[in-house]
Amino acid sequence: MDKAQLFESIRKKKSFLCVGLDVDLNKVPRHLLSAEDPVFEFNKAIIDATADYCIAYKPNLAFYESLGFNGLIAFEKTVRYIRSTYPDQFIIADAKRGDIGNTAKMYARSFFEHYEVDAITVAPYMGRDSVEPFTDYPGKWTIVLALTSNAGSKDFQMITDKRGCRLFEDVLLESHKWNNSERLMYVAGATRGELLADVRRLVPQSFLLVPGVGSQGGSLQEVCKYAMTDFCGLIVNSSRSILYASSGEDFDVAASVEARVLAEQMASELKSREII
Amino acid sequence: MDKAQLFESIRKKKSFLCVGLDVDLNKVPRHLLSAEDPVFEFNKAIIDATADYCIAYKPNLAFYESLGFNGLIAFEKTVRYIRSTYPDQFIIADAKRGDIGNTAKMYARSFFEHYEVDAITVAPYMGRDSVEPFTDYPGKWTIVLALTSNAGSKDFQMITDKRGCRLFEDVLLESHKWNNSERLMYVAGATRGELLADVRRLVPQSFLLVPGVGSQGGSLQEVCKYAMTDFCGLIVNSSRSILYASSGEDFDVAASVEARVLAEQMASELKSREII
Repeated sequence: MDKAQLFESIRKKKSFLCVGLDVDLNKVPRHLLSAEDPVFEFNKAIIDATADYCIAYKPNLAFYESLGFNGLIAFEKTVRYIRSTYPDQFIIADAKRGDIGNTAKMYARSFFEHYEVDAITVAPYMGRDSVEPFTDYPGKWTIVLALTSNAGSKDFQMITDKRGCRLFEDVLLESHKWNNSERLMYVAGATRGELLADVRRLVPQSFLLVPGVGSQGGSLQEVCKYAMTDFCGLIVNSSRSILYASSGEDFDVAASVEARVLAEQMASELKSREII
Repeated sequence: MDKAQLFESIRKKKSFLCVGLDVDLNKVPRHLLSAEDPVFEFNKAIIDATADYCIAYKPNLAFYESLGFNGLIAFEKTVRYIRSTYPDQFIIADAKRGDIGNTAKMYARSFFEHYEVDAITVAPYMGRDSVEPFTDYPGKWTIVLALTSNAGSKDFQMITDKRGCRLFEDVLLESHKWNNSERLMYVAGATRGELLADVRRLVPQSFLLVPGVGSQGGSLQEVCKYAMTDFCGLIVNSSRSILYASSGEDFDVAASVEARVLAEQMASELKSREII
Protein backbone atom coordinates (compact mmCIF):
# COMPACT_ATOMS: atom_id res chain seq x y z
CA MET A 1 0.00 0.00 0.00
CA ASP A 2 1.59 3.30 -1.05
CA LYS A 3 1.21 6.70 0.59
CA ALA A 4 -1.55 7.83 -1.79
CA GLN A 5 -3.55 4.67 -1.13
CA LEU A 6 -3.18 5.12 2.60
CA PHE A 7 -4.35 8.71 2.36
CA GLU A 8 -7.27 7.62 0.17
CA SER A 9 -8.23 5.04 2.79
CA ILE A 10 -8.16 7.76 5.47
CA ARG A 11 -10.36 10.06 3.37
CA LYS A 12 -12.81 7.30 2.57
CA LYS A 13 -13.14 6.11 6.17
CA LYS A 14 -12.86 9.64 7.62
CA SER A 15 -10.60 8.06 10.20
CA PHE A 16 -6.91 7.46 10.85
CA LEU A 17 -7.52 5.01 13.66
CA CYS A 18 -5.36 1.93 14.12
CA VAL A 19 -6.69 -0.76 16.44
CA GLY A 20 -3.89 -2.42 18.41
CA LEU A 21 -4.59 -6.14 18.67
CA ASP A 22 -2.76 -6.73 21.96
CA VAL A 23 -4.70 -9.71 23.16
CA ASP A 24 -4.19 -10.68 26.78
CA LEU A 25 -5.96 -13.92 27.71
CA ASN A 26 -6.38 -12.61 31.25
CA LYS A 27 -8.59 -9.84 29.91
CA VAL A 28 -10.52 -11.69 27.21
CA PRO A 29 -14.22 -12.21 28.10
CA ARG A 30 -14.54 -15.51 29.90
CA HIS A 31 -17.11 -17.01 27.57
CA LEU A 32 -14.48 -17.03 24.80
CA LEU A 33 -11.94 -19.05 26.75
CA SER A 34 -13.62 -22.34 25.86
CA ALA A 35 -13.23 -21.65 22.12
CA GLU A 36 -10.62 -23.70 20.25
CA ASP A 37 -8.61 -20.55 19.52
CA PRO A 38 -9.82 -17.84 21.94
CA VAL A 39 -7.25 -15.29 20.75
CA PHE A 40 -8.35 -15.54 17.14
CA GLU A 41 -12.05 -15.59 18.07
CA PHE A 42 -11.54 -12.44 20.14
CA ASN A 43 -9.59 -10.73 17.34
CA LYS A 44 -12.14 -11.72 14.71
CA ALA A 45 -14.98 -10.25 16.76
CA ILE A 46 -13.00 -7.07 17.46
CA ILE A 47 -12.05 -6.71 13.78
CA ASP A 48 -15.61 -7.22 12.56
CA ALA A 49 -16.81 -4.70 15.15
CA THR A 50 -14.26 -1.99 14.32
CA ALA A 51 -13.37 -2.35 10.63
CA ASP A 52 -15.77 0.42 9.60
CA TYR A 53 -14.05 2.88 11.90
CA CYS A 54 -10.35 2.21 11.41
CA ILE A 55 -7.82 2.06 8.60
CA ALA A 56 -5.23 -0.21 10.24
CA TYR A 57 -4.67 -3.06 12.66
CA LYS A 58 -1.54 -3.50 14.71
CA PRO A 59 -1.02 -6.87 16.39
CA ASN A 60 1.83 -6.64 18.91
CA LEU A 61 3.92 -9.78 18.50
CA ALA A 62 4.80 -10.05 22.18
CA PHE A 63 1.26 -10.98 23.07
CA TYR A 64 1.24 -13.77 20.51
CA GLU A 65 4.78 -15.05 21.09
CA SER A 66 4.12 -15.32 24.81
CA LEU A 67 1.52 -17.98 24.00
CA GLY A 68 3.98 -20.16 22.10
CA PHE A 69 2.99 -21.88 18.86
CA ASN A 70 -0.73 -21.38 19.48
CA GLY A 71 -0.11 -17.65 19.74
CA LEU A 72 1.72 -17.55 16.43
CA ILE A 73 -1.00 -19.55 14.75
CA ALA A 74 -3.50 -17.02 16.11
CA PHE A 75 -1.31 -14.19 14.78
CA GLU A 76 -1.12 -15.73 11.31
CA LYS A 77 -4.86 -16.48 11.24
CA THR A 78 -5.57 -12.90 12.31
CA VAL A 79 -3.41 -11.42 9.55
CA ARG A 80 -4.98 -13.73 6.95
CA TYR A 81 -8.48 -12.89 8.19
CA ILE A 82 -7.91 -9.15 7.87
CA ARG A 83 -6.24 -9.59 4.47
CA SER A 84 -9.09 -11.66 3.03
CA THR A 85 -12.07 -9.94 4.67
CA TYR A 86 -10.97 -6.32 4.79
CA PRO A 87 -8.36 -6.00 2.03
CA ASP A 88 -8.16 -2.20 2.34
CA GLN A 89 -6.87 -2.40 5.93
CA PHE A 90 -3.19 -1.63 6.59
CA ILE A 91 -1.55 -4.32 8.75
CA ILE A 92 1.32 -3.40 11.05
CA ALA A 93 3.34 -6.10 12.81
CA ASP A 94 4.40 -4.38 16.01
CA ALA A 95 7.57 -6.36 16.52
CA LYS A 96 10.18 -3.68 17.34
CA ARG A 97 12.91 -5.78 15.76
CA GLY A 98 16.48 -4.61 15.34
CA ASP A 99 19.46 -6.81 14.59
CA ILE A 100 22.55 -6.97 12.38
CA GLY A 101 22.18 -7.09 8.62
CA ASN A 102 21.93 -10.79 7.88
CA THR A 103 19.58 -11.29 10.83
CA ALA A 104 17.45 -8.28 9.95
CA LYS A 105 17.09 -9.83 6.49
CA MET A 106 15.65 -12.94 8.11
CA TYR A 107 13.12 -10.88 10.05
CA ALA A 108 12.18 -8.88 6.95
CA ARG A 109 11.61 -12.08 5.01
CA SER A 110 9.53 -13.54 7.81
CA PHE A 111 7.19 -10.57 8.19
CA PHE A 112 6.96 -9.31 4.61
CA GLU A 113 7.07 -12.59 2.70
CA HIS A 114 5.68 -15.20 5.09
CA TYR A 115 3.09 -13.21 7.03
CA GLU A 116 2.62 -10.57 4.30
CA VAL A 117 2.00 -7.64 6.61
CA ASP A 118 2.23 -4.09 5.20
CA ALA A 119 4.54 -2.68 7.85
CA ILE A 120 6.77 -3.61 10.75
CA THR A 121 8.06 -1.58 13.68
CA VAL A 122 11.85 -1.61 14.20
CA ALA A 123 14.21 -0.32 16.89
CA PRO A 124 16.93 2.08 15.69
CA TYR A 125 19.68 1.39 18.26
CA MET A 126 21.82 -0.73 15.93
CA GLY A 127 21.69 1.80 13.11
CA ARG A 128 21.50 1.80 9.35
CA ASP A 129 22.31 -1.81 8.49
CA SER A 130 19.71 -3.06 10.97
CA VAL A 131 16.95 -1.11 9.21
CA GLU A 132 17.78 -1.14 5.49
CA PRO A 133 17.01 -4.85 5.00
CA PHE A 134 13.40 -3.89 5.77
CA THR A 135 13.26 -0.82 3.51
CA ASP A 136 14.58 -3.00 0.67
CA TYR A 137 10.99 -4.18 0.17
CA PRO A 138 9.01 -2.02 -2.29
CA GLY A 139 5.41 -1.45 -1.24
CA LYS A 140 6.22 -2.22 2.40
CA TRP A 141 6.71 0.19 5.28
CA THR A 142 9.29 0.23 8.04
CA ILE A 143 8.25 2.12 11.15
CA VAL A 144 11.23 3.26 13.20
CA LEU A 145 10.88 3.94 16.92
CA ALA A 146 11.71 7.61 17.44
CA LEU A 147 9.83 8.89 20.47
CA THR A 148 7.95 6.24 22.40
CA SER A 149 5.11 6.80 24.83
CA ASN A 150 6.40 4.88 27.86
CA ALA A 151 7.94 6.33 31.01
CA GLY A 152 11.40 5.00 30.14
CA SER A 153 11.43 6.86 26.83
CA LYS A 154 13.15 9.75 28.59
CA ASP A 155 16.08 7.57 29.69
CA PHE A 156 17.84 7.67 26.33
CA GLN A 157 15.57 9.22 23.69
CA MET A 158 15.76 12.64 25.38
CA ILE A 159 19.54 12.70 25.78
CA THR A 160 20.88 15.84 24.13
CA ASP A 161 23.98 15.55 21.96
CA LYS A 162 26.80 18.04 21.57
CA ARG A 163 25.03 19.96 18.82
CA GLY A 164 21.83 20.23 20.84
CA CYS A 165 19.85 17.43 19.19
CA ARG A 166 18.00 14.94 21.32
CA LEU A 167 18.49 11.26 20.44
CA PHE A 168 15.02 10.92 18.92
CA GLU A 169 15.90 13.86 16.67
CA ASP A 170 19.17 12.19 15.70
CA VAL A 171 17.18 9.09 14.76
CA LEU A 172 14.86 11.14 12.55
CA LEU A 173 17.69 13.06 10.88
CA GLU A 174 20.07 10.16 10.41
CA SER A 175 17.52 7.64 9.16
CA HIS A 176 16.43 10.10 6.51
CA LYS A 177 19.81 9.59 4.81
CA TRP A 178 19.39 5.84 4.47
CA ASN A 179 18.47 3.92 1.33
CA ASN A 180 14.77 3.95 0.50
CA SER A 181 14.06 6.31 3.40
CA GLU A 182 10.79 7.21 1.66
CA ARG A 183 9.59 3.82 2.91
CA LEU A 184 10.03 4.87 6.54
CA MET A 185 7.41 5.94 9.02
CA TYR A 186 8.12 6.82 12.65
CA VAL A 187 6.66 5.96 16.03
CA ALA A 188 6.00 9.18 17.91
CA GLY A 189 4.20 8.90 21.24
CA ALA A 190 1.11 10.93 22.01
CA THR A 191 1.78 11.38 25.71
CA ARG A 192 4.02 14.35 24.95
CA GLY A 193 1.95 16.56 22.66
CA GLU A 194 4.39 19.42 22.31
CA LEU A 195 7.25 17.09 21.37
CA LEU A 196 5.25 15.93 18.36
CA ALA A 197 5.78 19.36 16.84
CA ASP A 198 9.55 18.80 17.10
CA VAL A 199 9.15 15.43 15.37
CA ARG A 200 6.94 16.87 12.64
CA ARG A 201 9.39 19.66 11.90
CA LEU A 202 12.11 17.13 11.05
CA VAL A 203 9.97 14.71 9.02
CA PRO A 204 7.26 16.85 7.39
CA GLN A 205 6.52 14.27 4.69
CA SER A 206 6.39 11.13 6.84
CA PHE A 207 3.50 9.27 8.34
CA LEU A 208 3.72 9.00 12.12
CA LEU A 209 2.38 6.04 14.04
CA VAL A 210 1.14 7.51 17.29
CA PRO A 211 0.57 5.21 20.25
CA GLY A 212 -0.55 6.40 23.63
CA VAL A 213 -4.01 7.78 22.87
CA GLY A 214 -6.56 6.23 25.22
CA SER A 215 -5.31 4.10 28.11
CA GLN A 216 -1.89 5.75 28.02
CA GLY A 217 -3.45 9.20 28.43
CA GLY A 218 -2.59 11.02 25.21
CA SER A 219 -4.99 13.56 23.73
CA LEU A 220 -6.14 13.23 20.14
CA GLN A 221 -6.64 16.98 19.84
CA GLU A 222 -3.05 17.63 20.90
CA VAL A 223 -1.74 15.08 18.43
CA CYS A 224 -3.63 16.68 15.55
CA LYS A 225 -2.70 20.17 16.61
CA TYR A 226 0.99 19.41 16.58
CA ALA A 227 1.46 16.76 13.90
CA MET A 228 -1.34 16.63 11.34
CA THR A 229 -0.34 17.51 7.76
CA ASP A 230 -2.34 18.16 4.60
CA PHE A 231 -2.08 14.43 3.78
CA CYS A 232 -3.13 13.67 7.39
CA GLY A 233 0.26 12.06 8.11
CA LEU A 234 -1.04 10.30 11.21
CA ILE A 235 -2.00 6.77 12.14
CA VAL A 236 -3.22 6.94 15.72
CA ASN A 237 -3.32 3.70 17.64
CA SER A 238 -5.60 2.68 20.44
CA SER A 239 -5.45 -0.77 21.98
CA ARG A 240 -6.74 -1.39 25.48
CA SER A 241 -9.47 1.25 25.53
CA ILE A 242 -11.09 -0.47 22.54
CA LEU A 243 -10.29 -4.14 23.19
CA TYR A 244 -11.38 -4.10 26.80
CA ALA A 245 -14.16 -1.52 26.65
CA SER A 246 -16.32 -4.25 28.20
CA SER A 247 -15.32 -7.52 29.83
CA GLY A 248 -18.73 -9.07 29.19
CA GLU A 249 -20.35 -10.81 26.26
CA ASP A 250 -21.01 -7.40 24.73
CA PHE A 251 -17.25 -6.72 24.37
CA ASP A 252 -17.53 -6.39 20.59
CA VAL A 253 -20.41 -3.94 20.76
CA ALA A 254 -18.53 -1.90 23.37
CA ALA A 255 -15.37 -1.99 21.21
CA SER A 256 -17.38 -0.83 18.22
CA VAL A 257 -18.79 2.11 20.18
CA GLU A 258 -15.36 3.09 21.45
CA ALA A 259 -13.85 2.91 17.95
CA ARG A 260 -16.74 4.88 16.49
CA VAL A 261 -16.35 7.65 19.06
CA LEU A 262 -12.64 7.92 18.25
CA ALA A 263 -13.35 7.87 14.50
CA GLU A 264 -15.91 10.66 14.92
CA GLN A 265 -13.36 12.77 16.76
CA MET A 266 -10.89 12.05 13.96
CA ALA A 267 -13.43 12.99 11.27
CA SER A 268 -13.98 16.26 13.06
CA GLU A 269 -10.23 16.97 13.12
CA LEU A 270 -9.92 16.10 9.42
CA LYS A 271 -12.89 18.30 8.53
CA SER A 272 -11.68 21.26 10.52
CA ARG A 273 -8.48 21.18 8.43
CA GLU A 274 -10.45 20.64 5.19
CA ILE A 275 -8.73 17.31 4.53
CA ILE A 276 -12.07 15.65 3.96
CA MET B 1 22.70 -19.92 36.85
CA ASP B 2 24.38 -17.32 39.09
CA LYS B 3 27.66 -15.51 38.49
CA ALA B 4 29.69 -17.92 40.61
CA GLN B 5 28.31 -20.92 38.72
CA LEU B 6 29.08 -19.29 35.41
CA PHE B 7 32.65 -18.58 36.50
CA GLU B 8 32.97 -22.15 37.75
CA SER B 9 31.80 -23.43 34.37
CA ILE B 10 34.43 -21.26 32.66
CA ARG B 11 37.19 -22.58 34.96
CA LYS B 12 36.13 -26.17 34.48
CA LYS B 13 35.89 -25.94 30.69
CA LYS B 14 38.89 -23.57 30.42
CA SER B 15 36.79 -21.71 27.90
CA PHE B 16 34.42 -18.79 27.71
CA LEU B 17 33.17 -19.63 24.25
CA CYS B 18 29.55 -19.22 23.26
CA VAL B 19 28.43 -20.92 20.07
CA GLY B 20 25.86 -18.85 18.19
CA LEU B 21 23.23 -21.16 16.73
CA ASP B 22 22.27 -18.97 13.77
CA VAL B 23 21.07 -21.64 11.43
CA ASP B 24 20.58 -20.63 7.82
CA LEU B 25 19.03 -23.37 5.71
CA ASN B 26 20.92 -22.04 2.68
CA LYS B 27 24.17 -22.92 4.40
CA VAL B 28 23.27 -26.20 6.08
CA PRO B 29 25.00 -29.23 4.48
CA ARG B 30 22.77 -30.58 1.74
CA HIS B 31 22.54 -34.10 3.09
CA LEU B 32 20.64 -32.76 6.13
CA LEU B 33 17.92 -31.08 4.11
CA SER B 34 15.98 -34.31 3.70
CA ALA B 35 15.71 -34.78 7.48
CA GLU B 36 12.31 -34.18 9.06
CA ASP B 37 13.68 -31.21 11.01
CA PRO B 38 16.95 -30.18 9.35
CA VAL B 39 17.48 -27.18 11.63
CA PHE B 40 17.27 -29.27 14.77
CA GLU B 41 19.41 -32.05 13.28
CA PHE B 42 22.04 -29.50 12.33
CA ASN B 43 21.94 -27.89 15.80
CA LYS B 44 22.09 -31.24 17.56
CA ALA B 45 25.17 -32.26 15.61
CA ILE B 46 26.84 -28.88 16.21
CA ILE B 47 26.02 -29.01 19.93
CA ASP B 48 27.35 -32.55 20.34
CA ALA B 49 30.49 -31.54 18.47
CA THR B 50 31.19 -28.39 20.46
CA ALA B 51 29.81 -28.92 23.98
CA ASP B 52 33.22 -29.85 25.36
CA TYR B 53 34.69 -26.56 24.20
CA CYS B 54 32.04 -24.00 25.06
CA ILE B 55 30.08 -22.82 28.07
CA ALA B 56 27.09 -21.29 26.30
CA TYR B 57 24.82 -21.51 23.27
CA LYS B 58 23.10 -18.53 21.73
CA PRO B 59 20.31 -19.23 19.23
CA ASN B 60 19.35 -16.05 17.40
CA LEU B 61 15.57 -15.97 17.21
CA ALA B 62 15.45 -14.27 13.81
CA PHE B 63 16.78 -17.38 12.11
CA TYR B 64 14.06 -19.51 13.69
CA GLU B 65 11.19 -17.05 13.34
CA SER B 66 11.93 -16.62 9.64
CA LEU B 67 11.04 -20.30 9.21
CA GLY B 68 7.60 -19.89 10.76
CA PHE B 69 6.18 -22.49 13.14
CA ASN B 70 8.70 -25.12 12.10
CA GLY B 71 11.48 -22.76 13.06
CA LEU B 72 10.03 -22.17 16.50
CA ILE B 73 9.58 -25.87 17.03
CA ALA B 74 13.26 -26.30 16.10
CA PHE B 75 14.18 -23.51 18.56
CA GLU B 76 12.24 -25.13 21.38
CA LYS B 77 13.65 -28.59 20.62
CA THR B 78 17.15 -27.11 20.55
CA VAL B 79 16.75 -25.45 23.94
CA ARG B 80 15.29 -28.64 25.44
CA TYR B 81 18.08 -30.73 23.96
CA ILE B 82 20.80 -28.54 25.45
CA ARG B 83 18.97 -28.39 28.80
CA SER B 84 18.58 -32.16 29.07
CA THR B 85 21.89 -33.31 27.56
CA TYR B 86 24.30 -30.61 28.70
CA PRO B 87 22.68 -29.11 31.82
CA ASP B 88 25.74 -27.00 32.66
CA GLN B 89 25.47 -24.99 29.45
CA PHE B 90 24.22 -21.39 29.64
CA ILE B 91 21.46 -20.71 27.10
CA ILE B 92 21.01 -17.23 25.67
CA ALA B 93 17.98 -16.35 23.55
CA ASP B 94 19.34 -13.68 21.22
CA ALA B 95 16.06 -11.88 20.69
CA LYS B 96 16.99 -8.20 21.13
CA ARG B 97 13.52 -7.45 22.43
CA GLY B 98 12.48 -4.07 23.78
CA ASP B 99 8.93 -2.91 24.30
CA ILE B 100 6.74 -1.09 26.83
CA GLY B 101 6.23 -2.58 30.27
CA ASN B 102 3.19 -4.80 29.84
CA THR B 103 4.54 -6.10 26.53
CA ALA B 104 8.02 -6.65 27.91
CA LYS B 105 6.40 -8.73 30.65
CA MET B 106 4.86 -10.93 27.96
CA TYR B 107 8.26 -11.44 26.34
CA ALA B 108 9.91 -12.17 29.70
CA ARG B 109 7.27 -14.75 30.49
CA SER B 110 7.66 -16.34 27.08
CA PHE B 111 11.44 -16.70 27.21
CA PHE B 112 12.02 -17.35 30.91
CA GLU B 113 8.94 -19.42 31.75
CA HIS B 114 7.95 -21.11 28.51
CA TYR B 115 11.33 -21.71 26.86
CA GLU B 116 13.30 -21.62 30.13
CA VAL B 117 16.43 -20.03 28.72
CA ASP B 118 19.01 -18.54 31.12
CA ALA B 119 19.34 -15.19 29.44
CA ILE B 120 17.84 -12.93 26.79
CA THR B 121 19.28 -10.02 24.85
CA VAL B 122 17.28 -6.77 24.98
CA ALA B 123 17.49 -3.39 23.23
CA PRO B 124 17.78 -0.34 25.49
CA TYR B 125 16.15 2.35 23.32
CA MET B 126 12.85 2.38 25.24
CA GLY B 127 14.54 2.67 28.63
CA ARG B 128 14.03 1.37 32.12
CA ASP B 129 10.48 0.05 31.99
CA SER B 130 11.27 -1.95 28.86
CA VAL B 131 14.08 -3.80 30.64
CA GLU B 132 13.01 -4.24 34.28
CA PRO B 133 10.29 -6.82 33.50
CA PHE B 134 13.17 -9.09 32.47
CA THR B 135 15.39 -8.39 35.49
CA ASP B 136 12.42 -9.20 37.73
CA TYR B 137 13.33 -12.86 37.26
CA PRO B 138 15.79 -14.17 39.88
CA GLY B 139 18.37 -16.55 38.48
CA LYS B 140 17.90 -15.18 34.97
CA TRP B 141 20.10 -12.76 33.05
CA THR B 142 19.17 -9.80 30.89
CA ILE B 143 21.80 -8.82 28.35
CA VAL B 144 21.46 -5.21 27.25
CA LEU B 145 22.81 -4.05 23.89
CA ALA B 146 25.47 -1.46 24.63
CA LEU B 147 28.04 -1.49 21.84
CA THR B 148 27.19 -3.74 18.94
CA SER B 149 29.60 -5.08 16.34
CA ASN B 150 27.82 -4.06 13.14
CA ALA B 151 28.69 -1.15 10.85
CA GLY B 152 25.57 0.79 11.85
CA SER B 153 26.54 0.74 15.53
CA LYS B 154 28.28 4.08 15.01
CA ASP B 155 25.06 5.77 13.81
CA PHE B 156 23.65 6.26 17.29
CA GLN B 157 25.73 4.36 19.86
CA MET B 158 28.70 6.68 19.33
CA ILE B 159 26.76 9.94 19.59
CA THR B 160 28.33 12.08 22.30
CA ASP B 161 26.06 13.84 24.76
CA LYS B 162 26.51 17.27 26.31
CA ARG B 163 28.60 15.91 29.17
CA GLY B 164 30.89 14.01 26.83
CA CYS B 165 29.41 10.53 27.24
CA ARG B 166 28.71 8.43 24.18
CA LEU B 167 25.28 6.80 24.00
CA PHE B 168 26.64 3.33 24.76
CA GLU B 169 28.20 4.80 27.90
CA ASP B 170 24.90 6.41 28.86
CA VAL B 171 23.28 2.98 28.48
CA LEU B 172 25.86 1.40 30.80
CA LEU B 173 25.62 4.17 33.40
CA GLU B 174 21.87 4.59 33.38
CA SER B 175 20.97 0.89 33.39
CA HIS B 176 23.16 0.42 36.43
CA LYS B 177 20.63 2.45 38.44
CA TRP B 178 17.70 0.19 37.57
CA ASN B 179 16.10 -2.44 39.80
CA ASN B 180 18.01 -5.72 39.98
CA SER B 181 20.82 -4.31 37.85
CA GLU B 182 23.05 -7.08 39.22
CA ARG B 183 21.13 -9.33 36.83
CA LEU B 184 22.35 -7.38 33.81
CA MET B 185 25.06 -8.29 31.34
CA TYR B 186 26.00 -6.20 28.31
CA VAL B 187 26.63 -6.82 24.63
CA ALA B 188 29.95 -5.24 23.70
CA GLY B 189 31.24 -5.87 20.20
CA ALA B 190 34.71 -7.20 19.54
CA THR B 191 35.31 -5.34 16.32
CA ARG B 192 36.41 -2.28 18.29
CA GLY B 193 38.97 -3.60 20.74
CA GLU B 194 39.95 -0.31 22.31
CA LEU B 195 36.32 0.65 22.99
CA LEU B 196 35.98 -2.45 25.15
CA ALA B 197 38.25 -0.80 27.68
CA ASP B 198 35.80 2.09 27.92
CA VAL B 199 32.97 -0.37 28.47
CA ARG B 200 34.90 -2.31 31.10
CA ARG B 201 35.74 0.86 33.02
CA LEU B 202 32.05 1.61 33.53
CA VAL B 203 30.89 -1.93 34.37
CA PRO B 204 33.86 -3.61 36.08
CA GLN B 205 31.69 -6.27 37.73
CA SER B 206 29.53 -7.26 34.78
CA PHE B 207 29.81 -10.09 32.32
CA LEU B 208 30.09 -8.92 28.72
CA LEU B 209 28.69 -10.89 25.83
CA VAL B 210 31.12 -10.24 23.00
CA PRO B 211 29.98 -10.95 19.44
CA GLY B 212 32.11 -10.31 16.42
CA VAL B 213 35.03 -12.70 16.98
CA GLY B 214 35.53 -14.84 13.87
CA SER B 215 33.56 -13.98 10.73
CA GLN B 216 33.02 -10.40 11.88
CA GLY B 217 36.78 -9.87 12.24
CA GLY B 218 37.29 -9.26 15.96
CA SER B 219 40.45 -10.43 17.70
CA LEU B 220 40.23 -12.61 20.80
CA GLN B 221 43.54 -11.27 22.10
CA GLU B 222 42.29 -7.69 21.88
CA VAL B 223 39.08 -8.59 23.68
CA CYS B 224 40.96 -10.22 26.55
CA LYS B 225 43.50 -7.44 26.74
CA TYR B 226 40.86 -4.78 27.16
CA ALA B 227 38.00 -6.47 28.96
CA MET B 228 38.99 -9.61 30.88
CA THR B 229 38.59 -9.43 34.66
CA ASP B 230 39.70 -11.70 37.50
CA PHE B 231 36.35 -13.54 37.21
CA CYS B 232 36.89 -13.69 33.42
CA GLY B 233 33.84 -11.49 32.83
CA LEU B 234 33.60 -12.48 29.18
CA ILE B 235 31.37 -14.69 27.11
CA VAL B 236 32.76 -14.57 23.59
CA ASN B 237 30.46 -15.63 20.80
CA SER B 238 31.32 -17.18 17.50
CA SER B 239 28.64 -18.26 15.06
CA ARG B 240 29.38 -18.60 11.38
CA SER B 241 33.06 -19.54 11.64
CA ILE B 242 32.05 -22.61 13.69
CA LEU B 243 28.70 -23.53 12.13
CA TYR B 244 29.91 -23.33 8.55
CA ALA B 245 33.52 -24.42 8.99
CA SER B 246 32.70 -27.04 6.39
CA SER B 247 29.74 -27.34 4.06
CA GLY B 248 30.24 -31.08 3.64
CA GLU B 249 29.20 -34.13 5.60
CA ASP B 250 32.13 -33.46 7.96
CA PHE B 251 30.56 -30.17 9.12
CA ASP B 252 30.37 -31.34 12.71
CA VAL B 253 33.99 -32.46 12.80
CA ALA B 254 35.06 -29.16 11.26
CA ALA B 255 32.92 -27.26 13.79
CA SER B 256 34.50 -29.22 16.61
CA VAL B 257 38.00 -28.38 15.40
CA GLU B 258 37.13 -24.70 15.06
CA ALA B 259 35.58 -24.58 18.56
CA ARG B 260 38.57 -26.46 20.03
CA VAL B 261 41.03 -24.01 18.48
CA LEU B 262 39.10 -21.06 19.94
CA ALA B 263 38.85 -22.80 23.33
CA GLU B 264 42.59 -23.43 23.34
CA GLN B 265 43.25 -19.77 22.66
CA MET B 266 40.86 -18.91 25.47
CA ALA B 267 42.57 -21.32 27.87
CA SER B 268 45.84 -19.66 27.06
CA GLU B 269 44.39 -16.22 27.83
CA LEU B 270 42.91 -17.48 31.11
CA LYS B 271 46.20 -19.11 32.10
CA SER B 272 48.29 -16.08 31.30
CA ARG B 273 46.13 -14.12 33.77
CA GLU B 274 46.24 -16.95 36.35
CA ILE B 275 42.46 -17.36 36.26
CA ILE B 276 42.84 -21.10 35.73
